[in-house]
Amino acid sequence: MTDIELAFDEHERLPAVAQDADSGEVLMLAYVTPEAVERSRETGFAHYYSRSREELWKKGGSSGHVQSIEEIRVDCDGDALLYLVDQEGGACHTGYESCFYRTLDGETVGERVFDPDEVYE
Amino acid sequence: MTDIELAFDEHERLPAVAQDADSGEVLMLAYVTPEAVERSRETGFAHYYSRSREELWKKGGSSGHVQSIEEIRVDCDGDALLYLVDQEGGACHTGYESCFYRTLDGETVGERVFDPDEVYE
Repeated sequence: MTDIELAFDEHERLPAVAQDADSGEVLMLAYVTPEAVERSRETGFAHYYSRSREELWKKGGSSGHVQSIEEIRVDCDGDALLYLVDQEGGACHTGYESCFYRTLDGETVGERVFDPDEVYE
Repeated sequence: MTDIELAFDEHERLPAVAQDADSGEVLMLAYVTPEAVERSRETGFAHYYSRSREELWKKGGSSGHVQSIEEIRVDCDGDALLYLVDQEGGACHTGYESCFYRTLDGETVGERVFDPDEVYE
């Protein structure tokens, strides 16, 4: 098998969706660079690129809420990735399991799995 | 309840992930504009913005493979959406149920659900 060629954008980034490999819950969407993809494959833990901090970022590096990668999938155009992961703790810095814990009209539908005050100092 | 304010980027776009509401399968990632979000809510069918064609796009408008929206979720930062949908046919123009039908190392893991030659003329 040959690696699928990825179509990074003009900033050398593309979006990656993290999905819980067991429950199927969509946990978050973040961006990756070629380096983030390579680090994810090498280490088995999800890495992203923080656009605000402008740096490579290991998910859970400070909170301990790491994502072990089971599989990385790529879409038909090669311009988006899907990380199938085992999520330690919760994916969202707000304490919810998923960053998508609200409907567009403001209803909270997600489950809170940790207290951010106890995780982030 | 009040609508969550969305953080569109400098091109007035943000990524939207479509997930099958029943199976949990992640079907595709595309981009939406404020107009695409509004049309999706008004009509109950997923609309996106095609960056290559530079136009509002009703998913399945030509193929019939529409996405009925069950719920729209928004992430913690308001800069990504999750469409929970009932997918008619398959989401991918290649005939696969999901656009994420390959692993990064080139293995086909998705299910083909239609023949694109019979759908697109």
